[in-house]
Amino acid sequence: MKAHNFYAGPSILPKSAVKATAKAIKNFANTGMSLASISHRSKEFEAVVNEAVALFKELLNIPEGYEVLFLGGGASMQFAMIPMNLMKKKSVYVNTGVWSTKAMKEAKLFGEVVEVKGEDFYHIPKGYSIDPEADYIHVTTNNTIYGTEIFEDINSPIPLVADMSSDIFSRPIDVSKYALIYGGAQKNLAPAGVSFVIVKSELLGKVDRVIPSMLKYETHIKDGSMYNTPPCIPIFTALQTLKWIKKEGGVEAMQKKAQKKAELLYNEIDKNKVFKATVADPDRSLMNICFVMKDEYKDKEAEFSKFAAERGLIGLKGHRLVGGFRASTYNALPKASVKALVKAMQEFEKQIIK
Amino acid sequence: MKAHNFYAGPSILPKSAVKATAKAIKNFANTGMSLASISHRSKEFEAVVNEAVALFKELLNIPEGYEVLFLGGGASMQFAMIPMNLMKKKSVYVNTGVWSTKAMKEAKLFGEVVEVKGEDFYHIPKGYSIDPEADYIHVTTNNTIYGTEIFEDINSPIPLVADMSSDIFSRPIDVSKYALIYGGAQKNLAPAGVSFVIVKSELLGKVDRVIPSMLKYETHIKDGSMYNTPPCIPIFTALQTLKWIKKEGGVEAMQKKAQKKAELLYNEIDKNKVFKATVADPDRSLMNICFVMKDEYKDKEAEFSKFAAERGLIGLKGHRLVGGFRASTYNALPKASVKALVKAMQEFEKQIIK
Repeated sequence: MKAHNFYAGPSILPKSAVKATAKAIKNFANTGMSLASISHRSKEFEAVVNEAVALFKELLNIPEGYEVLFLGGGASMQFAMIPMNLMKKKSVYVNTGVWSTKAMKEAKLFGEVVEVKGEDFYHIPKGYSIDPEADYIHVTTNNTIYGTEIFEDINSPIPLVADMSSDIFSRPIDVSKYALIYGGAQKNLAPAGVSFVIVKSELLGKVDRVIPSMLKYETHIKDGSMYNTPPCIPIFTALQTLKWIKKEGGVEAMQKKAQKKAELLYNEIDKNKVFKATVADPDRSLMNICFVMKDEYKDKEAEFSKFAAERGLIGLKGHRLVGGFRASTYNALPKASVKALVKAMQEFEKQIIK
Repeated sequence: MKAHNFYAGPSILPKSAVKATAKAIKNFANTGMSLASISHRSKEFEAVVNEAVALFKELLNIPEGYEVLFLGGGASMQFAMIPMNLMKKKSVYVNTGVWSTKAMKEAKLFGEVVEVKGEDFYHIPKGYSIDPEADYIHVTTNNTIYGTEIFEDINSPIPLVADMSSDIFSRPIDVSKYALIYGGAQKNLAPAGVSFVIVKSELLGKVDRVIPSMLKYETHIKDGSMYNTPPCIPIFTALQTLKWIKKEGGVEAMQKKAQKKAELLYNEIDKNKVFKATVADPDRSLMNICFVMKDEYKDKEAEFSKFAAERGLIGLKGHRLVGGFRASTYNALPKASVKALVKAMQEFEKQIIK
């Protein structure tokens, strides 16, 4: 039976990227050696990093003055690196859920944090003013747990920092509005183990605190992400994903596809008599679509889980904080998987409501 | 032509580990999904981490009271984490080369560092006394660049911390003599992107400084290396390598094999009229065997490089600080590769000295 992979991350990647990675693990770039066993300083691997950086810049239309880095440690490491490198005294954090809360917690270790919050985590805060005295404002554009998303490239009077772990490459963005964009790559880009950072380099080097070499962006800029041995396999896979995005028509095409898939699923959720959405428009994520049982069918949750699993629908369990279900519909998830889910929801509705 | 992989790292891994990884990237644990695309919280992946930790403990005979962690960021991140987590005021660093120097540089950001040095980096310092007031002493057991190695589990009056990036699992060690053992996994264990930490947990939590969550060992201990998404593919490959080590007879068997390979190559270096060793016994590394041209043949270096490459001998270029050649003879390097190198050296000698 075909598995429909709805995992929130690590998550589905393009077939071509997976295939190329498996092939390179056996024999990388016709070297007769495995991608797992080749020096990161080899000309073959240096070409991978250079091409990945170039494609990042091309696909996101990154202007001059920005650097693209591939680092280890995950987005959680960035939660610490950002305040260490950018905060002199004060920062603003738009708190839209678990990940923003975690990022904010680390920032508080290094200075004052002004928190911006909406009515709850099922809504994106709006109409707030931004403290012009703060060193930067931090947003998490897509919230994998609550299923909300910020679609706007915010006009900020202070440097704008965005965690785009789970929606990078899902739509065009105006990079010039951001000081720094970062994310773990294990959603729309690569296997777990690499994070990406797009940073406006002129903003760096302005804090006084002691920063260990590995936690300083300048260290990695100076050495082109090769200060230490980088996570070679995830970077290789990222390159294959970027090639696939380009071939499919770039981020504009990804956006259209995401909108279509989300429309299909949200329509069913809104229409189906057994399920309901947790998030209302216009804050509904196009990447992580959350839904729960209507109150009267709350006792049927385990039954639908089983029903879905029997149909090869994998990774639908909602985060424990929200409960219910979550369908992650990242770039590489085929529309056919969404259709299979919609069909299962319809069949389940018929089975329950006779 | 078969490639003989002498890279210093990332470097050769067991065939079985590479093969299993390529297979899992296509279809992991019969899930119908790629190892690159499966949740780290899935029961299938959690089993991988648990088995890898268990095999670490079994193969290295790790006593009670120690934790085994798999972290992102590389050994270079540990250079900062170690003083952050263990140094109250003062530490001792045995400086045996580039990596120790780098580790020491980060430690100096957090307190006083007492440096222990030998006559040069081609010798391991001996007969030094250890400041009993220091919080820990740090050694780099194998020095990939200069080709020296510390084979002794030092008797230290203060906690002993060891970077074993490049010789872990190459010989039995008495873990009970160490407070913390760490390393990047990309030599004897896994592809780049994961580091391992073996830590005596009672030594943690005794410093006052502010430590970001990701840089605190307790964070990762509490969540069993799953505080954030771990580098799944490298951890999977590490498990396959550990299985291979066990099957081959454990670290005792690895040591015997390493000694035989090193003996073969050092004998040829010492005997050959064209080459000479850079390191004298008893400090010669069994993992990275460095040699240069004798003074009278210095102009033949490029010629031997070409000669070796034509025979499929890859990755032999010495580090720029030492020059000449370096053959890395990690666990997975077959004896046949060493024999092929020895043969090439003999043939080259015949060609040069007629």
